[in-house]
Amino acid sequence: MSNHTLTVVAKIEAKAAHRETVKKALMGLIAPTMAEEGCINYDLHQDHNNENLFLFYENWESRALWLDHNVAPHIVEYQKKTKGCIESFELFEMHKVE
Amino acid sequence: MSNHTLTVVAKIEAKAAHRETVKKALMGLIAPTMAEEGCINYDLHQDHNNENLFLFYENWESRALWLDHNVAPHIVEYQKKTKGCIESFELFEMHKVE
Repeated sequence: MSNHTLTVVAKIEAKAAHRETVKKALMGLIAPTMAEEGCINYDLHQDHNNENLFLFYENWESRALWLDHNVAPHIVEYQKKTKGCIESFELFEMHKVE
Repeated sequence: MSNHTLTVVAKIEAKAAHRETVKKALMGLIAPTMAEEGCINYDLHQDHNNENLFLFYENWESRALWLDHNVAPHIVEYQKKTKGCIESFELFEMHKVE
């Protein structure tokens, strides 16, 4: 699958006390990530039943370009900003079934 | 949020022995659901690390129209076809954060 579009679903649950910090930091990732090579879309969502739960739905031109994203300066900065603020994190690498 | 676009993320894990039955039934939902009023997109994915795991990423014009979808004939038929084939199911109602 390495040369195909990669769909990534990233579920981030903030600790309740740090929800707004996490939300702001996640929102701050959108513009620089959209400007990255290979990023097709990078859509952030918030859950209606658990306001601490955020989810990115992302499509990338290749897994290699998504791996570059994972070490981009804005990701490293996000990790510093949200240290100790995250309750749980889950990530799924997928492909579209048509 | 009822008059806004609703994002739905549905995670379906098939029992390993019934994976292909579930996959075929899920794929069969795409065309009739895309034809439903209010459906903006209805994208099915399969996980790279757990091939039993499927995920729909969906956007709907309103929650009311998505509720109609949940009782559509093709959904009822899907539920019959996959009875006893599903390991777990999780559903998230979300909105986009921009």
